Amino acid sequence: MQTLHLDLGKHSYPIHIGHGLLDRAHEWIAPLIKTPRVAIVSNETVAPLYLDRLQNALEKSGIGALPIILPEGEQHKTVESWLAIHDALLAARCERGTTLIALGGGVVGDIAGFAAATFQRGIDFIQIPTTLLAQVDSSVGGKTGINHPRGKNMIGAFYQPRMVLIDTDALATLPARELSAGLAEVIKYGLIRNTEFFVWLENHLDALLAGDAAALQYAIGQSCACKAEIVAADERETGERALLNLGHTFGHALEAEFGYGNWLHGEAVAVGTMMAAAASKARGWLNDADCERIARLFERAHLPVRIPPADVERLIDWMRGDKKVASGKLRLVLLEAIGQAAVHPARDDEELQTALTACMDD
Amino acid sequence: MQTLHLDLGKHSYPIHIGHGLLDRAHEWIAPLIKTPRVAIVSNETVAPLYLDRLQNALEKSGIGALPIILPEGEQHKTVESWLAIHDALLAARCERGTTLIALGGGVVGDIAGFAAATFQRGIDFIQIPTTLLAQVDSSVGGKTGINHPRGKNMIGAFYQPRMVLIDTDALATLPARELSAGLAEVIKYGLIRNTEFFVWLENHLDALLAGDAAALQYAIGQSCACKAEIVAADERETGERALLNLGHTFGHALEAEFGYGNWLHGEAVAVGTMMAAAASKARGWLNDADCERIARLFERAHLPVRIPPADVERLIDWMRGDKKVASGKLRLVLLEAIGQAAVHPARDDEELQTALTACMDD
Repeated sequence: MQTLHLDLGKHSYPIHIGHGLLDRAHEWIAPLIKTPRVAIVSNETVAPLYLDRLQNALEKSGIGALPIILPEGEQHKTVESWLAIHDALLAARCERGTTLIALGGGVVGDIAGFAAATFQRGIDFIQIPTTLLAQVDSSVGGKTGINHPRGKNMIGAFYQPRMVLIDTDALATLPARELSAGLAEVIKYGLIRNTEFFVWLENHLDALLAGDAAALQYAIGQSCACKAEIVAADERETGERALLNLGHTFGHALEAEFGYGNWLHGEAVAVGTMMAAAASKARGWLNDADCERIARLFERAHLPVRIPPADVERLIDWMRGDKKVASGKLRLVLLEAIGQAAVHPARDDEELQTALTACMDD
Repeated sequence: MQTLHLDLGKHSYPIHIGHGLLDRAHEWIAPLIKTPRVAIVSNETVAPLYLDRLQNALEKSGIGALPIILPEGEQHKTVESWLAIHDALLAARCERGTTLIALGGGVVGDIAGFAAATFQRGIDFIQIPTTLLAQVDSSVGGKTGINHPRGKNMIGAFYQPRMVLIDTDALATLPARELSAGLAEVIKYGLIRNTEFFVWLENHLDALLAGDAAALQYAIGQSCACKAEIVAADERETGERALLNLGHTFGHALEAEFGYGNWLHGEAVAVGTMMAAAASKARGWLNDADCERIARLFERAHLPVRIPPADVERLIDWMRGDKKVASGKLRLVLLEAIGQAAVHPARDDEELQTALTACMDD
């Protein structure tokens, strides 16, 4: 087991990573809570697998639980799901001192985190992510939110958890497609600013795909450490934190265009990263071999690197609707090299067109 | 004109109080904004009176505006109104850099503030309160939120504005009943911890009711200074800030029982304060003369000090649903003397019953 610390002054918190942690969850949770009952938000897929185990662990410390089970899927990351949590908390007379635990993937964590941020102006919140994507990305850093018909994560808050508890055993039940989607974000950390980790991934990708526990803990630890470092430097994404969005401005447009829920977030990020790489190549920063090398790693992780034919103008429109637009000017996270990302303003629509079509089937 | 500062570290902000400020609003707003267009949230009553003047002022600095007009009244302090702001901001392609201005009373400020807190995880926010209640209470301190069918302000966030701009001229168009409701909160500041200000109010209540500009500026300044001091010491209401809720736990129960919108918040707070005074008397802290003196000041301000016959058990139920319940134990803000409030756990239901019935008509 490994423990990292996200240093955010009085909002600092630990990230525990290891296997077998779920059945011992009470050891870390009991010292944090203020009331004898917690609320646990999960979904229809994760609850049958892990809710009992979490509740049994909590019972060992005499902690009761109010389970709140959401339907599964990005298409349910809505105002309605968020309100359903508030309804359940109020119906059960939960209080300001209640701690809310998110048990599930990124969607559960984002909705539950936003509910915790807004229930009676904010209650304590613990993340127990059960997908690789959530373990290496969304559970760390305090971004919470829900989707709006006009765009992803348009409504939300920065709200830090009190703790993140990552049990790598949970990945055993994760569908292969979702493990791959999580690997897209893991690869992203290598690309952003850790060439050494990128090379490690090239050498250990097969072990990760095979579910090797030591490899998973190392990759998750590296990913969380990178994220924690960047978030600590820029909690509210005014600068450096934008680097974490490599592939995301393109990716969000793909998710919106092809329908939330049809593409996994990580899949969209993989293609989006290839689009960012294409734009970086057009600027002369990456060469063909670099792009090939990135594509090869994504492909080995069973991730898409191209999209089917689509309306380029509409995609650009989605990108302009993305919340990372500053003063009408679209900003892109580009790669100056493998392991060195930087934010640059997009030059013009032609640049976006070129990047999009470079990764589009005829 | 007078400027106070609410000291909250990097979230500090100025509170400007004076007359004629609205027509000069651009002088303070222009230096704060990041995009050439702001969004202005107002309501159907306030917009016809003051929106043009604010927009004209902003135009002097070349600042455009997106007006978002809500229906009026506490009954519209709902998820729907909050979502309508998000819809409008997104339809107009507002960005993370957009500043949102609330122009109106407490309801507008609370909903708009919660929209600012949650639009793309938080955008800049300016309060221009136009009611006395909002000027002395809700615009200062960062409490934002909306109501839930199960209780008032159950969904919300602590989110500080960048600035509060208080134009006392706006009170000229305020209905007398609402001026009175605002005075309930002004009187509250005297009761909490400023006996001298309470005495000043006894001596100047008629001037305030007559709309005397100097008296209003003094009373608003005293109120904001008291609130700013308490909020600075306890931004998230873990301790001292709870004092500001004098009369509110009882008051919220009255608003819920009699229907949001039928009672003005200040009216409920006035009776709620009398109930807190009754409980304080039962504990031997206030005497009959103290209670009379408080009731007399409320009555001179045309505020209610009693409620019609009501179901006491249901009222207690509403109180237990209130979000200031800590670990199932109801806490009351009581008066140890006029000018000296303190938080105490409620002893039992009988104590609540006695306080409620002491202020209830047969």
